[in-house]
Amino acid sequence: MGNKIFLVLLVVGVPLSIIGSILHWPTILMFVVYCLTIIALASLMGRATESLAIVMGPRIGGLLNATFGNAVELIISIFSLKAGLLGVVLASLTGSVLGNLLLVAGLSFFVGGTKFKRQTFNVFDARHNAGLLIFAIGLAFVIPEVFTQNMSHNRTMSLSVGISIILIFLYLAALFFKLVTHRGVYQPTEKTKQVEHEEEVPEWSKKTAIAVLFGATLIVAYISEKLVHTFSIVGETFGWSELFIGVIIVAIVGNAAEHASAILMAYKNKMDVAVEIAVGSTLQVAMFVAPVLVLISLFFPINMPLIFTLPELIAMVTAVLLIIMISNDGESNWFEGLTLLAAYVIMGIGFYLL
Amino acid sequence: MGNKIFLVLLVVGVPLSIIGSILHWPTILMFVVYCLTIIALASLMGRATESLAIVMGPRIGGLLNATFGNAVELIISIFSLKAGLLGVVLASLTGSVLGNLLLVAGLSFFVGGTKFKRQTFNVFDARHNAGLLIFAIGLAFVIPEVFTQNMSHNRTMSLSVGISIILIFLYLAALFFKLVTHRGVYQPTEKTKQVEHEEEVPEWSKKTAIAVLFGATLIVAYISEKLVHTFSIVGETFGWSELFIGVIIVAIVGNAAEHASAILMAYKNKMDVAVEIAVGSTLQVAMFVAPVLVLISLFFPINMPLIFTLPELIAMVTAVLLIIMISNDGESNWFEGLTLLAAYVIMGIGFYLL
Amino acid sequence: MGNKIFLVLLVVGVPLSIIGSILHWPTILMFVVYCLTIIALASLMGRATESLAIVMGPRIGGLLNATFGNAVELIISIFSLKAGLLGVVLASLTGSVLGNLLLVAGLSFFVGGTKFKRQTFNVFDARHNAGLLIFAIGLAFVIPEVFTQNMSHNRTMSLSVGISIILIFLYLAALFFKLVTHRGVYQPTEKTKQVEHEEEVPEWSKKTAIAVLFGATLIVAYISEKLVHTFSIVGETFGWSELFIGVIIVAIVGNAAEHASAILMAYKNKMDVAVEIAVGSTLQVAMFVAPVLVLISLFFPINMPLIFTLPELIAMVTAVLLIIMISNDGESNWFEGLTLLAAYVIMGIGFYLL
Repeated sequence: MGNKIFLVLLVVGVPLSIIGSILHWPTILMFVVYCLTIIALASLMGRATESLAIVMGPRIGGLLNATFGNAVELIISIFSLKAGLLGVVLASLTGSVLGNLLLVAGLSFFVGGTKFKRQTFNVFDARHNAGLLIFAIGLAFVIPEVFTQNMSHNRTMSLSVGISIILIFLYLAALFFKLVTHRGVYQPTEKTKQVEHEEEVPEWSKKTAIAVLFGATLIVAYISEKLVHTFSIVGETFGWSELFIGVIIVAIVGNAAEHASAILMAYKNKMDVAVEIAVGSTLQVAMFVAPVLVLISLFFPINMPLIFTLPELIAMVTAVLLIIMISNDGESNWFEGLTLLAAYVIMGIGFYLL
Repeated sequence: MGNKIFLVLLVVGVPLSIIGSILHWPTILMFVVYCLTIIALASLMGRATESLAIVMGPRIGGLLNATFGNAVELIISIFSLKAGLLGVVLASLTGSVLGNLLLVAGLSFFVGGTKFKRQTFNVFDARHNAGLLIFAIGLAFVIPEVFTQNMSHNRTMSLSVGISIILIFLYLAALFFKLVTHRGVYQPTEKTKQVEHEEEVPEWSKKTAIAVLFGATLIVAYISEKLVHTFSIVGETFGWSELFIGVIIVAIVGNAAEHASAILMAYKNKMDVAVEIAVGSTLQVAMFVAPVLVLISLFFPINMPLIFTLPELIAMVTAVLLIIMISNDGESNWFEGLTLLAAYVIMGIGFYLL
Repeated sequence: MGNKIFLVLLVVGVPLSIIGSILHWPTILMFVVYCLTIIALASLMGRATESLAIVMGPRIGGLLNATFGNAVELIISIFSLKAGLLGVVLASLTGSVLGNLLLVAGLSFFVGGTKFKRQTFNVFDARHNAGLLIFAIGLAFVIPEVFTQNMSHNRTMSLSVGISIILIFLYLAALFFKLVTHRGVYQPTEKTKQVEHEEEVPEWSKKTAIAVLFGATLIVAYISEKLVHTFSIVGETFGWSELFIGVIIVAIVGNAAEHASAILMAYKNKMDVAVEIAVGSTLQVAMFVAPVLVLISLFFPINMPLIFTLPELIAMVTAVLLIIMISNDGESNWFEGLTLLAAYVIMGIGFYLL
């Protein structure tokens, strides 16, 4: 089955990636090796997360997944920040948001929808997430763009730092809300779900799953860093701009873990987990990864303000409006998935031609 | 009754339109004759559509209506495109969107609301349409506006063509979704509706209705073309800009068919059909007529990019947000209709003064 | 209890405010005295409104509250208009909108949410208000901004006047809708509510409550005017710009009445009244106070167009989208309140640094 193919890819890909990076094999070849290996590792992480999700419930499972997907991204971005590549960092943040909201959610809805006519997920979570998407991307990212048009660099950084602190604070408050004060308050009334879960047997024990998750994350981080250094040559070879690589390529490869496991969950009709991965991961990027990077940049020679380019910002805002309109009823089908994918293709063409 | 008045208008108007256009009667007089005749023809088309809607169900009826309304528009736009009048084409597309979303839906809600306290329509369709409105107008029309600000003409056309192909593809996928894979899936549970329909007797047979529909469409197309050529003189006489004529006058007269039958349906409390006409027609303009015109323009000396002026774009986006906010609950009343009409008047004043 | 503290503040604050203003005591001292006295008066108005709300039902109570809160604002703005301070007037309108939507609603949701896990309010009213917020702020305020970029002053004023008349007309129509044609049509089905109200005993009789409300309004108006004249010196002392004072300080002090009574209502789990105060007051500012000021300015030497600065407009539009996303389900909790407050703080920092 699919798992065996991924296992072969893994057993072959990880050593090849390490040997090839040390022996400086041709860049385009290594680019392909890295990408395939990361996708195989993502499959492994998906299986580990699934085991954990069964043991610990869909919400914690989804959070774990989002965390492990974005740990990689945070590490890559810190290296880029250190090198002063602010544009690449902001582009890959944009790409993560678009990739999660349009590509991951789109594929989940579409693939799940080819098997099931109507799939449902927790409508309370969908609305909670919709509010936070509007807050983080529709307000906290938009305000500095408009307010700093005639502002000095110092004041721009003050506003960016202020907004970053508020974003992180509200992100932590949201975790407190979901896991402590309102844990289980907004559960759907049907009990079918719990029965479903009780019947399932996790593939791995909790310990094994966690060990696999950590191990795979480390290897993904190692390979991702190597991958990033192939981008400039790949870009030259194929005629891709830095913005396009940041927004599209980094998003697809860097979020492969989320992609794989979200789609897997959708195919198994566990839409709560699939949506939590796609939207939860977006919120983590917007409310945690992005502001943390702004704060970390204060320790580097070049500070990063929370100011995206106008195309990046408009792409994110319209993606947020689209996903909210589509997911706000707590239902999905193949056509809603196709709509999100069509939006992703439009943005892809746009960033390619920019 | 009303039907008799329209019949007289028709029997007098059609010959007068033809004779007057051949004998070159005064332009302002002919402008009035053309408008009244088209409105009378629209009434005829409305009755034919209603007969068909009873025979074939509200959804197909609504689609038919939208199709026949926009066939006229497509033909006029192709002639304008051939003459290189890109601004008029884009303005009349804008006018169709605004006219359908604000004027047709507004009049339907208002007129229906004066008779019924609360009117309901299929909330699943409303949400499905809301997603597509955001996709087509809030995203596919907005992205090229922002992304092409510093782009060469060739790349602007590439982006326009790419987005146009995606829009047409998704429009066809939406038809496949509604008519094949999910036909009848999102029906309200009440059976009252079907009972209602069974009781109704269509005015004309299916054959007669189709014949009337085709015949009237041909005559409307003929007169519409004549009407367009009166616009420049009417504009000079009344001090109206080309933009205002395109956005407001073309929209009202060119969409008179939808106006008449949507309002008729609303008055008969068939809100499903009324909303399908207003919003379905908007989606057909945005996802089919507009992108097809972009592709057709490739065969003409002057290519048309999918770039509206900023006032046109903002007017359409705000109209989309308003109709979504008002229709998303599957209910309407006279005040919601009045709100839409007030928005239309604001846009009208704006385009008049622009 | 709290009432006693406010009573002391009142008995001391009102005479001090009058004496201090006549004897020209130090400005910063008087600024503090005025603020505290207004807040004490607001508490009194809150109690009177609550008594009236019990007697006359939550909706009329909420309307009354919004009216008395904005009467003060209207008076101050007319004086500012007369002095030609258009920027301050528009800034304080913006501040009222932001203060009501983010600060008042945010505090209500947060404070109410610390006591109750989930609070509910009439979802029909929430949707009705959402439509009007999009109409007034997302459309009627946005259109002139975009359409007048290359427009002459005369045409800009024509558009502003036209939109103002439509806004006032629709505001009156909304009152007619709520109080006449659809009074009680959109009531939740549960009867618990009415039982709850019947059990409550108003603190004051209808006559006393009205007398207190009128008296307090007059004193608030008197002190507010004195307060405004301290702003320039306070601004110089603390380094606050006129925009910041208009948007933030005027909003907090000028709307203290709404703040106090909305939060009081939320704490008593009367969310219908709390939301009616916050959103109803916003709508009154946007659909009545703002357009009336545009029309009144026609009689003054300097006419005021309905054109906000871009930061003001974007702040209002994003605030509207956020409150709609959060309130559209007819439910609130402490985290939703915190989200609104976080948005208010972001705007506060933005306007401070602008």
